[in-house]
Amino acid sequence: GLQEFCGALHPARVAEFMEGLEAIEMWQVLQATEPDVRADIFSFVEEAKQVEIVETVGPEGISRLIADMPADDRVDLLSEVDQEVMEQTLPLLPQEDRRETLRLLGYAEGTAGALMTTEVARLSQTLTVHDALEAISRQSQDLETVYYNYVVDDQDHLLGLVSARDLVVNFTRPDTPISDLMQRDVVTVLVTDDQEAVAEKVANYNFIAIPVVDHHRKLLGIITHDDVIDVLQEEATEDAHRSASVDPLEDGYLETVWHQLAWKRGIWLTVLFVAALLTALALRGYEEDFQKVTWLVLFIPLVISSGGNTGSQSATLVIRGLTTGDVNLRDWRRVLRKELAMGLCLGGSLAAIGYLCAVMLTRSVPESADGVASAVNAVPTLWEVLVVPITLLLVVMCGTMTGGLLPLLFQRMGLDPALMSNQFVAGIVDIAGILIYMTVAMIMVPGLW
Amino acid sequence: GLQEFCGALHPARVAEFMEGLEAIEMWQVLQATEPDVRADIFSFVEEAKQVEIVETVGPEGISRLIADMPADDRVDLLSEVDQEVMEQTLPLLPQEDRRETLRLLGYAEGTAGALMTTEVARLSQTLTVHDALEAISRQSQDLETVYYNYVVDDQDHLLGLVSARDLVVNFTRPDTPISDLMQRDVVTVLVTDDQEAVAEKVANYNFIAIPVVDHHRKLLGIITHDDVIDVLQEEATEDAHRSASVDPLEDGYLETVWHQLAWKRGIWLTVLFVAALLTALALRGYEEDFQKVTWLVLFIPLVISSGGNTGSQSATLVIRGLTTGDVNLRDWRRVLRKELAMGLCLGGSLAAIGYLCAVMLTRSVPESADGVASAVNAVPTLWEVLVVPITLLLVVMCGTMTGGLLPLLFQRMGLDPALMSNQFVAGIVDIAGILIYMTVAMIMVPGLW
Ligand SMILES: [Mg+2]
Ligand SMILES: [Mg+2]
Ligand SMILES: [Mg+2]
Ligand SMILES: [Mg+2]
Ligand SMILES: [Mg+2]
Ligand SMILES: [Mg+2]
Ligand SMILES: [Mg+2]
Ligand SMILES: [Mg+2]
Ligand SMILES: [Mg+2]
Ligand SMILES: [Mg+2]
Ligand SMILES: [Mg+2]
Ligand SMILES: [Mg+2]
Ligand SMILES: [Mg+2]
Repeated sequence: GLQEFCGALHPARVAEFMEGLEAIEMWQVLQATEPDVRADIFSFVEEAKQVEIVETVGPEGISRLIADMPADDRVDLLSEVDQEVMEQTLPLLPQEDRRETLRLLGYAEGTAGALMTTEVARLSQTLTVHDALEAISRQSQDLETVYYNYVVDDQDHLLGLVSARDLVVNFTRPDTPISDLMQRDVVTVLVTDDQEAVAEKVANYNFIAIPVVDHHRKLLGIITHDDVIDVLQEEATEDAHRSASVDPLEDGYLETVWHQLAWKRGIWLTVLFVAALLTALALRGYEEDFQKVTWLVLFIPLVISSGGNTGSQSATLVIRGLTTGDVNLRDWRRVLRKELAMGLCLGGSLAAIGYLCAVMLTRSVPESADGVASAVNAVPTLWEVLVVPITLLLVVMCGTMTGGLLPLLFQRMGLDPALMSNQFVAGIVDIAGILIYMTVAMIMVPGLW
Repeated sequence: GLQEFCGALHPARVAEFMEGLEAIEMWQVLQATEPDVRADIFSFVEEAKQVEIVETVGPEGISRLIADMPADDRVDLLSEVDQEVMEQTLPLLPQEDRRETLRLLGYAEGTAGALMTTEVARLSQTLTVHDALEAISRQSQDLETVYYNYVVDDQDHLLGLVSARDLVVNFTRPDTPISDLMQRDVVTVLVTDDQEAVAEKVANYNFIAIPVVDHHRKLLGIITHDDVIDVLQEEATEDAHRSASVDPLEDGYLETVWHQLAWKRGIWLTVLFVAALLTALALRGYEEDFQKVTWLVLFIPLVISSGGNTGSQSATLVIRGLTTGDVNLRDWRRVLRKELAMGLCLGGSLAAIGYLCAVMLTRSVPESADGVASAVNAVPTLWEVLVVPITLLLVVMCGTMTGGLLPLLFQRMGLDPALMSNQFVAGIVDIAGILIYMTVAMIMVPGLW
C-alpha cells in the first residue's frame, strides 16, 4: 500500500508526487508513512506548503513531526509560521530540541549560525575505528550526515575530522585509534561568518560539510553541501535581481504579495527615474539648440543606450568576476587596461557604423505631410554629422571605464559590488552621454556655440 | 619538511599556498609531495596554471601525474592543453586510463557525459555488508567517492544504490546481504542529459553524487556534488553575462584574450545598436513636431528608460523564476495578472511623480545665454504636459507585459529564456516608447496632428 510505496522511494520523490495535494491531504499521506521517513519526506516539501500544513494541523498534531525534523529545517520552518503557532509548538517539543531550536533561532539571517544544523557526530579521540563506527551506527538516525565526523575534547573543542572514508578505508584495521587517522588541519567557519563566505569555502575545498565553530574553536554545528547549494542559488538570484534594479525578494516571484513586489521594484524604479529626470534637466539647457539643429534630437536615444549597454556589460563582467573570485581588487590595473582597450575597440566600431547610418538618416529626408520636403530638415554637412561618431566613441569609453571601475570601488569601500553598481553606472553614463553629446555638438556645429 | 607540510594540510590548502608560484616552481613543490596526494593537490590548482605546468614539464615528466588524476579532471585538462602535447601524452598513460580518457573526450561539452567520472565502486548484489566494506576499502584509493556505491549485474546494469551510510548503519550486522539494504529506486541521469538538468536533480534530491547511465540503464559513471556546484556557478555566470548582453565567456574575465572579449561584447552591442537606430528612424518621422514643440525633446530619455527599466525588472524576475523552477510555463496567467497589476501600480506612481516634475521643468524656464528668456521656450499648458504621465503609464505597462511574457514565450518555443529575452524586451520597449510618446503627443497637443 501507500506505506510501502513511500518507503521504497526517495523522500524527495514522494514529496514531488504529493505536489498537487492540499495541505490536509498531504498530512493524511504523511500519517500513512513510517514515522522514520515522515520527517524526511516533510523536509522536502516546499516551505510555503510546510507552513500551510503546520497551520492547518495545529501545534498538537504537528509537534512530533517537527521534533523529528533536522534542526536547521525546523528552525527555518518555525521562523516562517505564524508567531502564535510557533509559541504554542515550542513547549510541545522535547526539552533538548526546544533548547536547540531557541538557540538556533537567535542567529542572524544570512550567517553560518542560521544555516547550520546541530546533528553531527562528536567523537572522543580515544575511540578506535571499530568503536567509532559503532558509535556512528548507533546515533545515525539522528545525524544529518555520517560522512564527516568530528573529534572533540570534553569541552567540545574541535580537534580533528574523521570522515566515513577514513573509517571505511581502515575498516580492516578496527583497532586503530581514530587519533591516528584524523585530519587535524580542519577547515572551519565562524558562527558569525556570512553565508556567502561559507559557500565559497565549501565550493573551493569540495567539502560535503563544514564545521561551524565559535571564537574558542568550540564545535557548534555543521553546514552540509545541500544547504550550500541552496545558498549559492539564493545568492545568484539576489544578484540577478539587483542587476535588474529589484530589491531582492525573500520568497519566490509568484509567492511574493503584490504590495511587497511593488515596493521592491518601485523604490529602485523611482531612484532610476530621478536619475533620468536629471537627463531632462540637462537637455533643458539645450532646448534652443534643438530648435536650431533639430537633427540632433534623432540620436539622443542611440547615444544614451550605447553608453548604457557598454557600461552594463563592463559592470556585470567585473561584478560576476568578483563574486566568483576570478577578479580581485588588486587586479584593478588589469581591469582598467582591459576596459580602456574595450572602450576604444567597441566605441570605434560603433562610431564607424554610427557615422554611416547617421549620414544616411540625415540625408534621405522624409517628405513632410503636405508633400513638400520642409526647410526644417536642413541637411547637416558630413563634418557636422561627425558629432555622432565622436560622441559614440567617448560615451562608450565612459561606459567601459565607469562600468569596470565602479564595482571595484564599491568593493574597496567594503560594499557589495552587486549592490547598486549597475544602477550607478547607468545613471552616470546617461548624464555623461547627454553632456558629451551636446558639448561635441557645440564644438562641431557652426552657430551653436 | 615540505613533504610533511603538504601531507598534513588539505590538498586545496596546499594548492592555495602555491598560488603565487611559477609553473616550474609548482612542479618542484609537487615533486616533493607524497605520490598519493600529488594528484589531489594538482587537481585543486586552477586550470590555466595546470595547463601551463603540463606544457612546461612536457609529456614524459607529467604523464604519471595525469594518470593519477580523477578521470573527469584529466579529461578537462587534456582538452585544454595544446593539441600536440595531448597527442604525445595519451600514449604514455596506462592502457585503461587512456581508453577511458578517449571515451570521455567524446562526450559533448555541457552534457552529463562530459561532467562524469568513472571511478565509482561497482558492487555485486551477492556481497554482504562486510564484503562490501572490504571491497570499497581495497579500491578506495581509486574511487572518487566511497559514499555512494552502486550495485550492478555482470553487464554493469544498475540495480541499486548502497550508501556508506547504509553500510555504516549495518556495520554491526556484517552478514546482511547488501541486496537487503540497497535502494532500488535509484535516481539517474542519462549520459546525454544537459548539465543544467543534472544540477537541478542533484540540488532537489540533496545528493552527494548521481549515477550516469545509458539508454539500457548501464552504469557509465557518476557526477559528484563538487562538480555540480561548479556547474551551478558556471550557469549563473552564463545567465548574468547574457542578461548584460555579453555572449557568455568560456574562461574568466581576466583570462579572456581581448579580441575574443571584444567579439563577445561587440556582436550584441551591434544588435542593440541597430535596435536603437530604429528609434532614430522613428524619431525622424517627428522631426517637424519637435521643431514646433521643443519641450517634448526633454522627456525622450525619461520615457524610454522608464519602460526599459520596468521591462528588465519583469524579464529578470521571470527568467530567474524559470531557472530556479519557481515559475512554470503553466503559470502564465498568474504572471500576466501580476505584471498587469505591477504595470498599473508602478506606471501610475511614476506617472504621478513624472507629471509633477514635468510641470516644474517646463515652467521654470532657464534664461538663455543672452540673458533673455527666449520665445522658443513657449510654456506648455497643464493639459499638454499630461502627455508625459499618460505616456509613462502606457510605456511602463508595455514594459511589464513584454518583460513578463516574452521569457515564457521563449521557453514555450523551446529556447533558453535567459538567451536574449532581455535584449528583445529592451528593443521592443524602446521603439514602443517613442511611438506611444509621439502618438499621445499628437492627440493631446493642439496643432501637432
Ligand atoms: Mg530531534
Ligand atoms: Mg535547508
Ligand atoms: Mg536557517
Ligand atoms: Mg549575501
Ligand atoms: Mg570545487
Ligand atoms: Mg540541512
Ligand atoms: Mg551576494
Ligand atoms: Mg588512474
Ligand atoms: Mg569535463
Ligand atoms: Mg547551459
Ligand atoms: Mg536541496
Ligand atoms: Mg570531479
Ligand atoms: Mg542556463
